[in-house]
Amino acid sequence: MEAIRYEGNPIIRPEDVEPSSEAVRVVGVFNPAAVQLGEETILLMRVAESFREVDPNWVRVPVVDPISRELRAICLPRSSPDIDVSDPRLVVYRGRVYLTSVSHLRLARSRDGRHFDVERHPMLAPDTAYETYGIEDPRITHLADGRFIISFSAVSEHGVCVELAETPDFANFRRLGIVLPPENRNAAVFPEKIGGRYVMMHRPNSEPFGSSGIWLAFSDDLVHWGDHRFLAGARPGTWDSARIGAGAPPLKTRHGWLAIYHGAALESNTYCLGALLLDLHDPTRVLARSREPLLWPVAPYETQGFYPNVVFACGVIHRSNGRLYVYYGAADHAIALAEIGLDELIDSLR
Amino acid sequence: MEAIRYEGNPIIRPEDVEPSSEAVRVVGVFNPAAVQLGEETILLMRVAESFREVDPNWVRVPVVDPISRELRAICLPRSSPDIDVSDPRLVVYRGRVYLTSVSHLRLARSRDGRHFDVERHPMLAPDTAYETYGIEDPRITHLADGRFIISFSAVSEHGVCVELAETPDFANFRRLGIVLPPENRNAAVFPEKIGGRYVMMHRPNSEPFGSSGIWLAFSDDLVHWGDHRFLAGARPGTWDSARIGAGAPPLKTRHGWLAIYHGAALESNTYCLGALLLDLHDPTRVLARSREPLLWPVAPYETQGFYPNVVFACGVIHRSNGRLYVYYGAADHAIALAEIGLDELIDSLR
Repeated sequence: MEAIRYEGNPIIRPEDVEPSSEAVRVVGVFNPAAVQLGEETILLMRVAESFREVDPNWVRVPVVDPISRELRAICLPRSSPDIDVSDPRLVVYRGRVYLTSVSHLRLARSRDGRHFDVERHPMLAPDTAYETYGIEDPRITHLADGRFIISFSAVSEHGVCVELAETPDFANFRRLGIVLPPENRNAAVFPEKIGGRYVMMHRPNSEPFGSSGIWLAFSDDLVHWGDHRFLAGARPGTWDSARIGAGAPPLKTRHGWLAIYHGAALESNTYCLGALLLDLHDPTRVLARSREPLLWPVAPYETQGFYPNVVFACGVIHRSNGRLYVYYGAADHAIALAEIGLDELIDSLR
Repeated sequence: MEAIRYEGNPIIRPEDVEPSSEAVRVVGVFNPAAVQLGEETILLMRVAESFREVDPNWVRVPVVDPISRELRAICLPRSSPDIDVSDPRLVVYRGRVYLTSVSHLRLARSRDGRHFDVERHPMLAPDTAYETYGIEDPRITHLADGRFIISFSAVSEHGVCVELAETPDFANFRRLGIVLPPENRNAAVFPEKIGGRYVMMHRPNSEPFGSSGIWLAFSDDLVHWGDHRFLAGARPGTWDSARIGAGAPPLKTRHGWLAIYHGAALESNTYCLGALLLDLHDPTRVLARSREPLLWPVAPYETQGFYPNVVFACGVIHRSNGRLYVYYGAADHAIALAEIGLDELIDSLR
């Protein structure tokens, strides 16, 4: 069971995105949330930007000042023996990690789910002391009461936290605060209450005691979360042997909650996509799980890019023809689309 | 400003504690919570136990089976090149961390706050899938409604989590679940609601982006927590340059919330005690902080033991004579007592 790539992939590339200021260039547009609003498909994309000019003496790390909201640089000595720039995403200096880019969230709209118009300005940009290194990897959940809940990673010198925001219209936003402290990311809220409470998948860092996996948390009000339960972890000897994390918000089907997730393998660090099927009434019960991945990096735009060999989904849309449109980040560089039949996928899991 | 050690220290040693079964020996009794109930001082102590017999071929890691609640052993090959037993607290095998002991919580009672009778059996023992490696470092908060809230670390293959339990009488307990996912520990609940919500200090692991520090979280019901805020972190070049964490639950004074905390230094990894003074109405505001530690390891029972050069407080009692009795773990081995005048301490901070 393999998802079918759209032949026009990638559907959005860095060159399709206007930089948010003259000082920066877009190095990646990836890991989009997705939601269908009537005839319109909306993607909320992570846009990563780095300083346009490279300084020969200093590695300039972009950070957003939480007071002025302006972009500043942390300058680290490029020739220091204490600096490590081997990972394109990171600068490690004296044991501390910095990011080479700062991310904001940007909207794109489409009539056919394949051709998108990208808005010219950020929709949600770093704004608080917990977001100075950027906001990343959004998921959108459309609640029954009409609100949209956006879950994203807030990154700063305080670590990577899970933050929520709500919007009725993608024009006005209200931040609901840091709902899970560091190190935590890849949170996705279920679209309805289960047993009277909101439910959220998240991925705390369980190392060095265990491998990082997917947990569930519960809430009455979306602000305060508790009753944390381990749901699923890495599986030795498989495609998801190193770590796994939630992808898109779970989709309600008559067979259970269907959750597309990502997993990485221990040796290769290749990121693939798989699926979990959870009990409708007790989502802590895993009914089924992909033995083989649904999608793995083979296309050139997946195996080459800012961070190679990654397919990473944050948004899935169930279309009226029974097909799932999976929007995914390819190599932390561009956005691609793959589709899969919902019934076939469920059959393959059971 | 230095706390004064009680001349009869340590007040409780491993040999004062009955092992919980014939298979184990007590390797440490330390990091006690403390609460005053009328004339009686109660300590809730962490008791660490290892297997009595040492196997020449296998390192036997004690774990509690979450179904049968019996003690089992994970056997790791002692002569493997992949094993690291250099830290007495841990076994590192193929990148995974295990503990050399499993901890439970045990009660001790005293009439004078100095001489304690230790109960013969555990009060709270590992019981769930999140506690298989033990439960550690309790804090007790006496709420205005009469309930006692116990915050402790639950350790397992899923990592180190913050868990709460409540009891009206130290005989009947109700677990409130995992309130903060891994890696998190050193949680302490404030004794009353502030601004309508319960408040808790906790210490998530912010590495590698930052150093681990003290955060606050807020709750309506003690089960669901949110609105996480960074409160205070490590200070470069000082006695608390590596990491800090909450000690005893904060004490209400007319000058602010007084919180005894622990800090470790980067190079030496020596654990000392200091104090924070927080605004009574807005505890996210730090009013004052110890420039020098109040207590640092110098006594033989602090510099030698299971894990040397540690003083670590989880319980402080404000006695009627205006003195603070600070109960602390010494070298992860024994329990000691130091005292300090409340007014002098506050004066030294301001």
